[in-house]
Amino acid sequence: MVGNLLGQRLVMISFGESHGKVVGVVIDGVPAGLPLSEGDIQKIVDLRRPASEISTSRREADKVEILSGVYKGRTTGAPLAMMVRNVDVDSRPYELIEKGWARPGHADYTAYMKYGGYNDPRGGGRFSARITVGFVMAGALALKLLSHTLNVEVIGYVREIADIKTPELSIEELRKRYENDVRCPHPETARRMKEAILKAKEEGDSVGGVVECIALNVPVGLGEPVFSSLDSDLARALFSIPAVKGVEFGAGFLSAKLRGSENNDPMAIKNGEIVTLTNRAGGILGGISNGMPIVVRVAFKPPSSIAKPQKTVNFKEMKEGKIVVPGRHDPCVVHRAVPIVESLVAFILADHALRAGFIPPVLE
Amino acid sequence: MVGNLLGQRLVMISFGESHGKVVGVVIDGVPAGLPLSEGDIQKIVDLRRPASEISTSRREADKVEILSGVYKGRTTGAPLAMMVRNVDVDSRPYELIEKGWARPGHADYTAYMKYGGYNDPRGGGRFSARITVGFVMAGALALKLLSHTLNVEVIGYVREIADIKTPELSIEELRKRYENDVRCPHPETARRMKEAILKAKEEGDSVGGVVECIALNVPVGLGEPVFSSLDSDLARALFSIPAVKGVEFGAGFLSAKLRGSENNDPMAIKNGEIVTLTNRAGGILGGISNGMPIVVRVAFKPPSSIAKPQKTVNFKEMKEGKIVVPGRHDPCVVHRAVPIVESLVAFILADHALRAGFIPPVLE
Amino acid sequence: MVGNLLGQRLVMISFGESHGKVVGVVIDGVPAGLPLSEGDIQKIVDLRRPASEISTSRREADKVEILSGVYKGRTTGAPLAMMVRNVDVDSRPYELIEKGWARPGHADYTAYMKYGGYNDPRGGGRFSARITVGFVMAGALALKLLSHTLNVEVIGYVREIADIKTPELSIEELRKRYENDVRCPHPETARRMKEAILKAKEEGDSVGGVVECIALNVPVGLGEPVFSSLDSDLARALFSIPAVKGVEFGAGFLSAKLRGSENNDPMAIKNGEIVTLTNRAGGILGGISNGMPIVVRVAFKPPSSIAKPQKTVNFKEMKEGKIVVPGRHDPCVVHRAVPIVESLVAFILADHALRAGFIPPVLE
Amino acid sequence: MVGNLLGQRLVMISFGESHGKVVGVVIDGVPAGLPLSEGDIQKIVDLRRPASEISTSRREADKVEILSGVYKGRTTGAPLAMMVRNVDVDSRPYELIEKGWARPGHADYTAYMKYGGYNDPRGGGRFSARITVGFVMAGALALKLLSHTLNVEVIGYVREIADIKTPELSIEELRKRYENDVRCPHPETARRMKEAILKAKEEGDSVGGVVECIALNVPVGLGEPVFSSLDSDLARALFSIPAVKGVEFGAGFLSAKLRGSENNDPMAIKNGEIVTLTNRAGGILGGISNGMPIVVRVAFKPPSSIAKPQKTVNFKEMKEGKIVVPGRHDPCVVHRAVPIVESLVAFILADHALRAGFIPPVLE
Repeated sequence: MVGNLLGQRLVMISFGESHGKVVGVVIDGVPAGLPLSEGDIQKIVDLRRPASEISTSRREADKVEILSGVYKGRTTGAPLAMMVRNVDVDSRPYELIEKGWARPGHADYTAYMKYGGYNDPRGGGRFSARITVGFVMAGALALKLLSHTLNVEVIGYVREIADIKTPELSIEELRKRYENDVRCPHPETARRMKEAILKAKEEGDSVGGVVECIALNVPVGLGEPVFSSLDSDLARALFSIPAVKGVEFGAGFLSAKLRGSENNDPMAIKNGEIVTLTNRAGGILGGISNGMPIVVRVAFKPPSSIAKPQKTVNFKEMKEGKIVVPGRHDPCVVHRAVPIVESLVAFILADHALRAGFIPPVLE
Repeated sequence: MVGNLLGQRLVMISFGESHGKVVGVVIDGVPAGLPLSEGDIQKIVDLRRPASEISTSRREADKVEILSGVYKGRTTGAPLAMMVRNVDVDSRPYELIEKGWARPGHADYTAYMKYGGYNDPRGGGRFSARITVGFVMAGALALKLLSHTLNVEVIGYVREIADIKTPELSIEELRKRYENDVRCPHPETARRMKEAILKAKEEGDSVGGVVECIALNVPVGLGEPVFSSLDSDLARALFSIPAVKGVEFGAGFLSAKLRGSENNDPMAIKNGEIVTLTNRAGGILGGISNGMPIVVRVAFKPPSSIAKPQKTVNFKEMKEGKIVVPGRHDPCVVHRAVPIVESLVAFILADHALRAGFIPPVLE
Repeated sequence: MVGNLLGQRLVMISFGESHGKVVGVVIDGVPAGLPLSEGDIQKIVDLRRPASEISTSRREADKVEILSGVYKGRTTGAPLAMMVRNVDVDSRPYELIEKGWARPGHADYTAYMKYGGYNDPRGGGRFSARITVGFVMAGALALKLLSHTLNVEVIGYVREIADIKTPELSIEELRKRYENDVRCPHPETARRMKEAILKAKEEGDSVGGVVECIALNVPVGLGEPVFSSLDSDLARALFSIPAVKGVEFGAGFLSAKLRGSENNDPMAIKNGEIVTLTNRAGGILGGISNGMPIVVRVAFKPPSSIAKPQKTVNFKEMKEGKIVVPGRHDPCVVHRAVPIVESLVAFILADHALRAGFIPPVLE
Repeated sequence: MVGNLLGQRLVMISFGESHGKVVGVVIDGVPAGLPLSEGDIQKIVDLRRPASEISTSRREADKVEILSGVYKGRTTGAPLAMMVRNVDVDSRPYELIEKGWARPGHADYTAYMKYGGYNDPRGGGRFSARITVGFVMAGALALKLLSHTLNVEVIGYVREIADIKTPELSIEELRKRYENDVRCPHPETARRMKEAILKAKEEGDSVGGVVECIALNVPVGLGEPVFSSLDSDLARALFSIPAVKGVEFGAGFLSAKLRGSENNDPMAIKNGEIVTLTNRAGGILGGISNGMPIVVRVAFKPPSSIAKPQKTVNFKEMKEGKIVVPGRHDPCVVHRAVPIVESLVAFILADHALRAGFIPPVLE
């Protein structure tokens, strides 16, 4: 049951539950000397908070507290522990699960079997997307570290919701992703996505979608083949986000339909640097970054909690029945996942930048 | 540069190069008492060997040698080391890479940058699909272990090549995947796929495709959320296979287009066991196996080595040019990847079955 | 700089500093279903608190707060996070270190060099014995787990202080170690040790000593040779305690002087169980527990903080000088180390009991 | 049962058995660009081979074969696999163990219990000191790496055998340790030790002793507190050597008897560098190297295999009896342990030098 550690040279351990006291993270391997304040972390955590009618009505302040690892405004090289307290908690709707009714698409049954019924079911416990607050706190550290040392920039955005697709946009446009609550940087598409989310919500249903994340200025040489290749480690991290069902890099599943002559990225020299003229590889060749933008897409299923009645079972009494999932929920998690995806991508990149020596153990 | 270890309770370390002396693997954490012979391993390794005109003309005997960890026909609990020797090696075509010419789509440039030019470029060195012989040896051990203890069965097959799709088949039919060299269990589709591969080969090109892998009889409870969830660990392993660009579970990227009411798998009780009536989750809920078949799909890009001239660069002399990739190559790797995918899926399942206590440290 | 993780199947990450906000620990891999309260942890933490004139005058309440991983009085299988807050902090004496004056025997200089001067020097920061509160919280969990499942008992006691030795005692007597503040279960010896400590204190000096720790009822079969053998892992953990300079098992350094015929423990059968008639092996053969009591001794140097003037250097100004170490300190740490040694021994035993399957992932 | 991995940034996995086909090691994380030949490894492995009448009569050529990871005379950054074949094997004496008779002091009984009787008992299997050939191959790599990059020198020698002690010697004298078969650099003491060994041998007995190991030119800053401190990791590695019962650093167990004013090393500046005037700390403060020589002492018990009859049990038939241990054995292992201790010390130092960035991932 050891599964809450991520990273090799920069390691985070996630802790906390949806309706427990706190959600937090401890990070070991943080280089010494990085300027860091609670405000730096708070800023990114705030991007994850639900903000409008297309998200859950649970309202958490998510006030970040740094418990250790910072002294005089800089990281010390000691473990960085951070947490937020859970405040707006209503656990009554989860009595149904305690009675043994499984919500289809949720981990109620698998968790019950795995933990012998001892797991905290309130709000989904460890299986709630709420624990990603810890991922985002770690991501905020990683983003600060990457921008401070390597000028790496990580941009996620909503690529698709309810089969509505964002058109191709420039990096400049993508940077505006946080200007609306859908996290889609194309306002007209964002508007349509929002409509689709609200329509599903109204109908007691939910919608899925795709987040694309792009990392710029990643140096050539990140990734440790064969089992800790950059795509391997990114995929592992991204599948840790609740509701993720697929991960692809560059042309991804499309590349399976192309011929080699179409899929290979021709190489050239621009401004004295080796580049590829297309980026179907998504910035990774042989598991190692090639200097082009890292491009990864993450498929999110529609949230499993819907208001419609569903056929299910009671796993304690071993009987069939129907359930109308109670509680406060998101009709869509794709837009909220944007900072989470960015955080995990940043964390893995920072881990690999440290492993490959691009970031030193002590910063200037 | 530590990246050649996979697994937590069952750990493999991969070693060897395409044109070096050997390709091998050492596995730590093997339970004691499992009947195991070189023949058990050889049988699976043989499934990976190129066998016809749709694969490379390199012909390796791939004779498996068990170096340690077995005594009187049973595993001892000590590390299991295995290797095959490289015999049919022709390294002349790789002089071009040594001179600095990068093959587009290959790791020549990224490896050069990462290892400072010291990596073995012959046959792609560590980046060759040849090193997956080691994965398959480890997989053979895992498959034996899983079938011996848990009756788990792992079935991979070619789902798609060159946009030609295998129709839905029964498990019984899927089991026949190794009856033809395309590893597609639908003979008519296999024939069309083979034609497409040969046509591409004839045109000096290559094709990609998708392998689907199904694991049956997986007990409920495998997977260690949040970062070592079953899908996280499977994805990490699968992205270690050269040419993989996407991984999805169950409905995968399609689930992003569905509504919750369509995507949730209704639950029921059959023969006293909890099941889902559909399997869009792909057998994993909350990162934990739910007892339904694990279903994962892996997208392979077309092999990067093609006979057509391509625009590229010389990374040692920093100049542009054209390359016609020399050497013996596969016009398609999808069919050859089937036992590799099965092997890694089996290895991760065995690791998790050990971690969760479903397989004891000493077998009866 | 990843060094704050201990264990493989039961993993703790230590965080916090001497004069920071908190000292804490997160433990991953805790089996589900163990009854656990803050009181269980508090009880052991209280054994570590300074209690008399032979210890520092710093007085911390060390009130344990469980942040996550427990629900309805039982562990859930999720990470168990715990912390205490630092309250009685006086950081003024540490301005000397910030100015570059190294206290001989302390980590001031090595930490400065390693962390580029960014480490928190107040109270020794991460190098203070204060962080062992986290070890003890983890140990309290491990002790509860071991006694709940395997009836394992861990008894540490002061074997030697200032060259005054505890005579051989029965297990029954050893169990009384916490009845006095010296943690020496032989009252007359305890009295003499206390005198020696107070005498040293009076003279502005400090004394060292040896803690012996005995683990009873350890099942045969704990330990994973060759590099994670039981003695290897115990030694690694014990050398993490500040001031430890030596670790030995069974006859230890004495065995180097014996002949094989003297040192080998003759084997016999008692009450149907295989035993050894002596225990010079200290309960470990080939890195694996043999069912006899685990016996380990740990040498503690005298605390480096003494009131006498010492020759030292200023590492920022690169000049020599004298220092009289300021702050509140322990004239001896041996007695306070007893619950710390017990905690780490218990933690490693629990880790290995889980690894070897003696403790299941879900408790009844 | 995962216990055969050592190191974090430089990782070795040990494999092989005493009477199996091979003994070997795979090392991941080797920097690219290090000049390395089989001769470099052979040279150190040869130091470990039994060479005279004070060692076993088993004569192995121990011819080193590098299987992977080297190309054109330099390491490539890929896993370095190496092995020697077992040739001079006589397994008949071990039929006694197969029948259930435990050799006192050996792992026969514990291994039987742990591995359910499936372990290879011939020659001790994995518990034989023979597997340290793999440690030494890894050590040879580490020694080459350390001397090539940091000028670190590692000198082990026999400090004590059968209570006969080597006098204090200069570094210059210590360097001559391999000039006699006792590995004691003081010829007169070596002669007396040899006599003691031969006398014990003649009497069917065995003797123990102490190896001291000194590492010079270690940079300030190696070690990752708190659980991967330099002493923690060294101790863990050293307790993996068969027959080790104690490990101490600097003044070690003696420091427990000293006062702080005696034990603290006064600091000074010499030739512009910070030094300590004594080295009771053994080169480690707070778990981090301080630039002074690392000094570690390792206590070896007398070999358990003796010709004298001993009281023992048959663990298969659960009956008592007497045993005269058959087979070819060493009457003392201390002298043979010298290159093994050096190897593990070098390996841990190399791991930490890589972790702390003192050795880059690619060498010039």
